[in-house]
Amino acid sequence: MGYMLASRKTKKDNTLVKVGDVVIGGDHLTVIAGPCAVEDRDRYIKVALQLKKLGVQMLRGGAFKPRTSPYAFQGLAEKGLDILEEAKRITGLPVVTEVMDTRDIELVARCADVIQIGSRNMQNFILLKEAGRTGKPVLLKRGLSATIEEWLMAAEYVMNEGNSQVIMCERGIRTFETHTRNTLDISAIPAIKHLSHLPVIVDPSHASGKWGMVAPLSKAAVAAGADGLLIEVHPCPDEALCDGGQSLTPGNFADLINEIIPVAEAVGRKCLFKTKPLVNKSIM
Amino acid sequence: MGYMLASRKTKKDNTLVKVGDVVIGGDHLTVIAGPCAVEDRDRYIKVALQLKKLGVQMLRGGAFKPRTSPYAFQGLAEKGLDILEEAKRITGLPVVTEVMDTRDIELVARCADVIQIGSRNMQNFILLKEAGRTGKPVLLKRGLSATIEEWLMAAEYVMNEGNSQVIMCERGIRTFETHTRNTLDISAIPAIKHLSHLPVIVDPSHASGKWGMVAPLSKAAVAAGADGLLIEVHPCPDEALCDGGQSLTPGNFADLINEIIPVAEAVGRKCLFKTKPLVNKSIM
Amino acid sequence: MGYMLASRKTKKDNTLVKVGDVVIGGDHLTVIAGPCAVEDRDRYIKVALQLKKLGVQMLRGGAFKPRTSPYAFQGLAEKGLDILEEAKRITGLPVVTEVMDTRDIELVARCADVIQIGSRNMQNFILLKEAGRTGKPVLLKRGLSATIEEWLMAAEYVMNEGNSQVIMCERGIRTFETHTRNTLDISAIPAIKHLSHLPVIVDPSHASGKWGMVAPLSKAAVAAGADGLLIEVHPCPDEALCDGGQSLTPGNFADLINEIIPVAEAVGRKCLFKTKPLVNKSIM
Amino acid sequence: MGYMLASRKTKKDNTLVKVGDVVIGGDHLTVIAGPCAVEDRDRYIKVALQLKKLGVQMLRGGAFKPRTSPYAFQGLAEKGLDILEEAKRITGLPVVTEVMDTRDIELVARCADVIQIGSRNMQNFILLKEAGRTGKPVLLKRGLSATIEEWLMAAEYVMNEGNSQVIMCERGIRTFETHTRNTLDISAIPAIKHLSHLPVIVDPSHASGKWGMVAPLSKAAVAAGADGLLIEVHPCPDEALCDGGQSLTPGNFADLINEIIPVAEAVGRKCLFKTKPLVNKSIM
Repeated sequence: MGYMLASRKTKKDNTLVKVGDVVIGGDHLTVIAGPCAVEDRDRYIKVALQLKKLGVQMLRGGAFKPRTSPYAFQGLAEKGLDILEEAKRITGLPVVTEVMDTRDIELVARCADVIQIGSRNMQNFILLKEAGRTGKPVLLKRGLSATIEEWLMAAEYVMNEGNSQVIMCERGIRTFETHTRNTLDISAIPAIKHLSHLPVIVDPSHASGKWGMVAPLSKAAVAAGADGLLIEVHPCPDEALCDGGQSLTPGNFADLINEIIPVAEAVGRKCLFKTKPLVNKSIM
Repeated sequence: MGYMLASRKTKKDNTLVKVGDVVIGGDHLTVIAGPCAVEDRDRYIKVALQLKKLGVQMLRGGAFKPRTSPYAFQGLAEKGLDILEEAKRITGLPVVTEVMDTRDIELVARCADVIQIGSRNMQNFILLKEAGRTGKPVLLKRGLSATIEEWLMAAEYVMNEGNSQVIMCERGIRTFETHTRNTLDISAIPAIKHLSHLPVIVDPSHASGKWGMVAPLSKAAVAAGADGLLIEVHPCPDEALCDGGQSLTPGNFADLINEIIPVAEAVGRKCLFKTKPLVNKSIM
Repeated sequence: MGYMLASRKTKKDNTLVKVGDVVIGGDHLTVIAGPCAVEDRDRYIKVALQLKKLGVQMLRGGAFKPRTSPYAFQGLAEKGLDILEEAKRITGLPVVTEVMDTRDIELVARCADVIQIGSRNMQNFILLKEAGRTGKPVLLKRGLSATIEEWLMAAEYVMNEGNSQVIMCERGIRTFETHTRNTLDISAIPAIKHLSHLPVIVDPSHASGKWGMVAPLSKAAVAAGADGLLIEVHPCPDEALCDGGQSLTPGNFADLINEIIPVAEAVGRKCLFKTKPLVNKSIM
Repeated sequence: MGYMLASRKTKKDNTLVKVGDVVIGGDHLTVIAGPCAVEDRDRYIKVALQLKKLGVQMLRGGAFKPRTSPYAFQGLAEKGLDILEEAKRITGLPVVTEVMDTRDIELVARCADVIQIGSRNMQNFILLKEAGRTGKPVLLKRGLSATIEEWLMAAEYVMNEGNSQVIMCERGIRTFETHTRNTLDISAIPAIKHLSHLPVIVDPSHASGKWGMVAPLSKAAVAAGADGLLIEVHPCPDEALCDGGQSLTPGNFADLINEIIPVAEAVGRKCLFKTKPLVNKSIM
């Protein structure tokens, strides 16, 4: 009873996940960026515009936030979705946002261009089914201690609902090492490429928990064959209500893109950043 | 923003979780047993009666089953709850059963005396909140790679809804070792006792994945101070639709109880098995 | 190319490891105790006499200490061995002590009744061979991330030199959990008993790194079928040069023995502590 | 009592490890290659010449092999060192080879240009000291479950003997994931660069245990900032006595180099492979 729909044996060609004009899993590198959580309307719109200028292809931002502590900021919920809607309208960029509760699926699916299933819900099998049924592309984060096989089995749950638009997202696994928040399993990229036809992207921000590691890990991911990156960018990381320590400023993010472009080209991957991105100082 | 309601610092005395006549967290050892999943009405009722005869205090049985593969048996759902209801009526024993979806909370809470949150949902925070709101005792399984602190934080989510009736259940963590399905973290028992006032029980069946290890691990758990055990017993493990390899037969389970009683007494814990349990041959 | 000499398939009966009058692996529980390191002649002799009074069957104490930092106390080396010799003469008890270097094997074997191979050297294969060649019993600690199979393979290295006197010692494995120093793999006890004929003992002091956990873990180990315990006892844990936080005082150790005796008897294991041990106040 | 000599705080500039003309830790990417074990004189010389032609800067090959089973090939020992000597003479390339026993240090140091300390001996502290005393550069593999801090502490043992020529080698850590033999901790590269001035290289062959993953992991390592690569190349992987499954053929290795060069250049690292390497068909 292994995975079949997700298997490379069943389908030889790479699956292309299409989100508006964006295609994930083809020749291009897809960069998704934004703050961990949607915290404030003005700030979100501002950073969204900056990211758009920098050539980012999709926005991220959590309206519903899974937090270890019940006393931590839990997200703006519907209000967060409204802000995402506005950001979409203003920037024209699609958004990816997380759903945590089957009861919110419809609500989230109305706003989200891509529905995110978070690490802690990777084996929330009913949520996987419901996400699959929306027909929207699903970004499936790997569970903290999920094997590659279990992760593909989770994708199978989505696909078994008739939805083949699944993006696998490696975000670090839990190991004994404490220097980083999690251990980025870089081998998962060639493993998924070998075992499955689904696209795979990497979230270096959550994997390391340290903004200073985002650049080297991003370059490593691209070099290893990742189809895209999911990166946290916050206008003022020090004031972030969630995961500020791993967020880049827009300025650092612009530097990162400049570092990634030559690596992407070195492995034959096209970038949508045609020219050297420049941070528009007047906006920042 | 640590856990407060779950902390021993906030409340010095042990919390007693009361389920009908059963008290978990006091002087007595509580033994909960039954098959992993409710698969068939006649079989479930039969094994429930056998367990009742053996002195078991609570029945277990999953109606909704979290399975790694979408192609594996997913549980009988509502029909399973009906069977549990009938087993309760016939045996007079309370039941613990798992909920996986916030939309099923009411349904499950109507039948369950104790609501189980499974390992894969330990950080399904909305489910924790909803389980807390039912007011029913919650059996909270430790996540596969949850630290003790994260596990207590999950309990805090339940307690923050005004529900202090939480039973912590250690069921093995994920490590590099492959000989056992998971690694029973026996140290979690004294750790929870030290850090919290909540009762802690152990599931040696899921921890090891091997029925031959259930007896030594059960004795170890009791010796280390566990308030109870959650054990899989199936009338015909070879025919089980789920986790047969780790299930005891009623006969093996009777032997297990005979082995546990002296260990429980050696650590000053009372057993509700007043006399040597005998498997009623006519029933089996 | 699996293990053969260490396998239960090759030899059905339990191996009895004999150290003078002490037999490890039979009906009796063997308790080995002492400070982590030999630090001072007078203190070591004093605690050795206390342990003798309490009925301990073997002394432990490191003369050569493997330390993570080159700036930490590295052991008294030959001077430590001299102190162990004197303690043996005065108490009449055998000693177990660690060897770290093939060049010291002869020196250590002259003093040690049991040669200890530490966790960090479990796959120091040449040291295993040399320890095997001495003909002395070998106490083989499990490596921090060694699987049970690799651990038995390490025993096979010793046995392949014609030495069947190997004692397996579970001392905790490295996992993601940080509450304890290591995670005691209690399942390793029934696993070794099932796979091998070799005796298995448990070191709850190194496993937890917390003296308050030594009692519950010791009881769990005995209940799960361990043939013995290796426990750190230090006259003044606060002043210990090594691992003070996990050491019991002689008084706490006497309490521990009182707690262990009924558990040992509950699982059919005889104790050499015939009467309730009493700490001789005049000696302490 | 942390590491001091190995710390970036103590020494701001990168340490350059010099092995003849080869400099590790500077602007160039250093590629070390060869079979896991020296198995046969003619084969080793042949592959050494092929690697030389391909522009490899240093040869690897084990004369003493740490093997999990005592029944596995243990290496040719002194005879293996003789073959390495001959390969050095013929190719003019320096060699790195492992030492496992303090008694062999002199012997190994006479032949080796770089002394390798293997993963299983990373905390064989006496071996670290003796390797340090030789004054030869030391290639220090990370232990299977060593934290980055413990690994730097092991380097400190070498450096504390007055030897600053230490090369850190990440080779995968042990986690729950079983798809790969170990989990390459790609984050260790920026971590070591941040915490220490020592050079860091990556062994993708041992990390993955799969030759098909060597190319993507090598590119990832270079993109993340590694100073070099240690790669297994065997003339006939299927016939290898050790680790054949993770070895590249010389042809695959030539392809790998062609893939690495543009990635190295993309991150500003110079390659000593001036032109596209071509496998000399007449030699192969």
